[in-house]
Amino acid sequence: MAKRIVTLITDFGHDDHYVGALKGAILSVNPEATIVDICHNVPAQDLVAAAYVLRCSYQYFPSQTIHVVVVDPTVGSSRRIILTSGDHYYFLAPDNGVLSPMFALEEVSSVREVDAEHYYRKPVAATFHGRDIMAPVAGWLSRGLDVSNFGEPIDDYVQLVFPMARVDAGGFIAGRVIHVDSFGNCVTNITRELFAEAGGDVENGHPILRVASSAIDVFGSHYSQGKEGSPLLLFGSSDFLEIAMYRGRANQALGIERGADVQLWI
Amino acid sequence: MAKRIVTLITDFGHDDHYVGALKGAILSVNPEATIVDICHNVPAQDLVAAAYVLRCSYQYFPSQTIHVVVVDPTVGSSRRIILTSGDHYYFLAPDNGVLSPMFALEEVSSVREVDAEHYYRKPVAATFHGRDIMAPVAGWLSRGLDVSNFGEPIDDYVQLVFPMARVDAGGFIAGRVIHVDSFGNCVTNITRELFAEAGGDVENGHPILRVASSAIDVFGSHYSQGKEGSPLLLFGSSDFLEIAMYRGRANQALGIERGADVQLWI
Amino acid sequence: MAKRIVTLITDFGHDDHYVGALKGAILSVNPEATIVDICHNVPAQDLVAAAYVLRCSYQYFPSQTIHVVVVDPTVGSSRRIILTSGDHYYFLAPDNGVLSPMFALEEVSSVREVDAEHYYRKPVAATFHGRDIMAPVAGWLSRGLDVSNFGEPIDDYVQLVFPMARVDAGGFIAGRVIHVDSFGNCVTNITRELFAEAGGDVENGHPILRVASSAIDVFGSHYSQGKEGSPLLLFGSSDFLEIAMYRGRANQALGIERGADVQLWI
Repeated sequence: MAKRIVTLITDFGHDDHYVGALKGAILSVNPEATIVDICHNVPAQDLVAAAYVLRCSYQYFPSQTIHVVVVDPTVGSSRRIILTSGDHYYFLAPDNGVLSPMFALEEVSSVREVDAEHYYRKPVAATFHGRDIMAPVAGWLSRGLDVSNFGEPIDDYVQLVFPMARVDAGGFIAGRVIHVDSFGNCVTNITRELFAEAGGDVENGHPILRVASSAIDVFGSHYSQGKEGSPLLLFGSSDFLEIAMYRGRANQALGIERGADVQLWI
Repeated sequence: MAKRIVTLITDFGHDDHYVGALKGAILSVNPEATIVDICHNVPAQDLVAAAYVLRCSYQYFPSQTIHVVVVDPTVGSSRRIILTSGDHYYFLAPDNGVLSPMFALEEVSSVREVDAEHYYRKPVAATFHGRDIMAPVAGWLSRGLDVSNFGEPIDDYVQLVFPMARVDAGGFIAGRVIHVDSFGNCVTNITRELFAEAGGDVENGHPILRVASSAIDVFGSHYSQGKEGSPLLLFGSSDFLEIAMYRGRANQALGIERGADVQLWI
Repeated sequence: MAKRIVTLITDFGHDDHYVGALKGAILSVNPEATIVDICHNVPAQDLVAAAYVLRCSYQYFPSQTIHVVVVDPTVGSSRRIILTSGDHYYFLAPDNGVLSPMFALEEVSSVREVDAEHYYRKPVAATFHGRDIMAPVAGWLSRGLDVSNFGEPIDDYVQLVFPMARVDAGGFIAGRVIHVDSFGNCVTNITRELFAEAGGDVENGHPILRVASSAIDVFGSHYSQGKEGSPLLLFGSSDFLEIAMYRGRANQALGIERGADVQLWI
């Protein structure tokens, strides 16, 4: 039996039985499955947030890992469930666009519509496809079954356009705060790669970030380089530009919320 | 060695070391144990809430799973610890009534008082029987030991009467909101089964639910059938009638809290 | 392959992908690893709180368990990462003092500076040594590698002095509330052992605890011995003196916060 790890990203929180039931349904198919919680506190029905969590975590797992995303506002409707396979990972999620960033980042060799009902848990509750469809499919997949068992390839799956930073003609990179983490660090969608492409240079240049009413020009590589109470820019562990504050909370100190526009002057 | 999964339902939350210590005590007996968190955010010492979580999750696990419930307001007193066995599952919990719904739902062949002290972790802390009694017993049970090793059968275990919906002579089903989930869905104790027994018919009838100051007559099968901002009735994934709101929070919009009375006019 | 469990204590919370990425990095080295969450809600960068959680949980795990503590305010700076080995457990953490209590409690045979870069995940993010250094090292260690592979012994590791209770010349034990748990129990740093050494005797004496504006003289062994709404003293499951309240929250009722001074008059 092949050993494929199953990870979970959901908006179920930790106050209900939903995550437990989902794990039980996986283990009922494969009692040997290794299940890893990535995050269950995705804001309710927030596809962009779920995609961010996936984007920042999937690549740290062993090859063949099955990443399951259950953020599913239209569960029970005719929206499909899709399963992708590629060089490294499987992704299983509602066909609502939550996997869109993966199509750009990963070599995906097939996207299939999951419709092989004989693998479902019966009866299927219209309000919980995570438990009754995605969990058993993940369980069977973790036992080594080939993706071709679960449905035919499709090419009209939903693709969402996620907010991307871009180089503006005015000479700056226009971006956005896409996540505020539990330390108060404000993560933007400006990547280290885009910064380099735009000619940015932390060593020899003097980049300045404008956000809310602040202009920040202190660049570092790690949090404790900053002065206490002063904001600091750095490229974080997922290579996104972050606004941080050593021994402080940048979001509160600077009044920054997710969605805030930023301008990085190079 | 038999493979029996151990699940945990507690009111320990996630801010303390309690869940970790409990898992360590299980693994000290059986390092190969598969331990699954169902929920640790049961409101403190709330037996009804714990029983609800168990009721909605236990049946999705493989046969032979050991369900451990550590919600234990009188830990350290003379209250007993009980272990049930039946056709499908084991349940291990304080004898405080938290397992009562299981006796109605499951074929239970024995209920035993756990008193085989040689399986306990020593010394036993009077404030943490979960760690020092229930965890090691679950560990030994997960290794395949028979329940007869842990104590003798009893029949005077505590039975709590949980609030049940009932058909009222006035021509409606009288029930109650027994849970508000993290999406704001208000779960009542009116089951699909009771609704059918009472002659309810979503297709051909026109059922109306009265709750707080609202009367709701829109019935669906899944959340996204509702209009944004309007309440919707549906039978949820555990076959309880729920009050939901697509892209909204029914509890906040309608002012509904756990414990609220509901009347379903058929 | 040896079977060594890996436990995690972090201040990452549950809202981000950090814990998931860390687990992925462990599993990428050892897909068979058993990983146990002890606590991820340590207050941000709070070494004292992290040490308390470790102190109260590590000893319940099987021998050879690898305890990993990722509370790391100065990540990316020149602070070292240390790995200890002893008779029972491994501890892996930043060299910031968070392990100090372990050196007193456990027979530690070596403390090593982790610097064997060929075991690291590359590239190493300056902001996430948990994922890129500690996780892979824990993964390799869980596969049975000897600690000598990861670096040389050192003896100049950081030792923090944690607040200890002491017998005061005035005839009382002076201590402090070091933790308020999720039930509202206020845990002090007065141990059962210190109390006995100071001549305390619950059976025959009449100890009184002064805290905030209260004087508490009711001693018990478990929570439900207390009257509802009245405070109760007891030695808890980690042998620290606690202020509790049956069916109540002692911290709120008495206005006690972490850090509050207490005096136990024997």
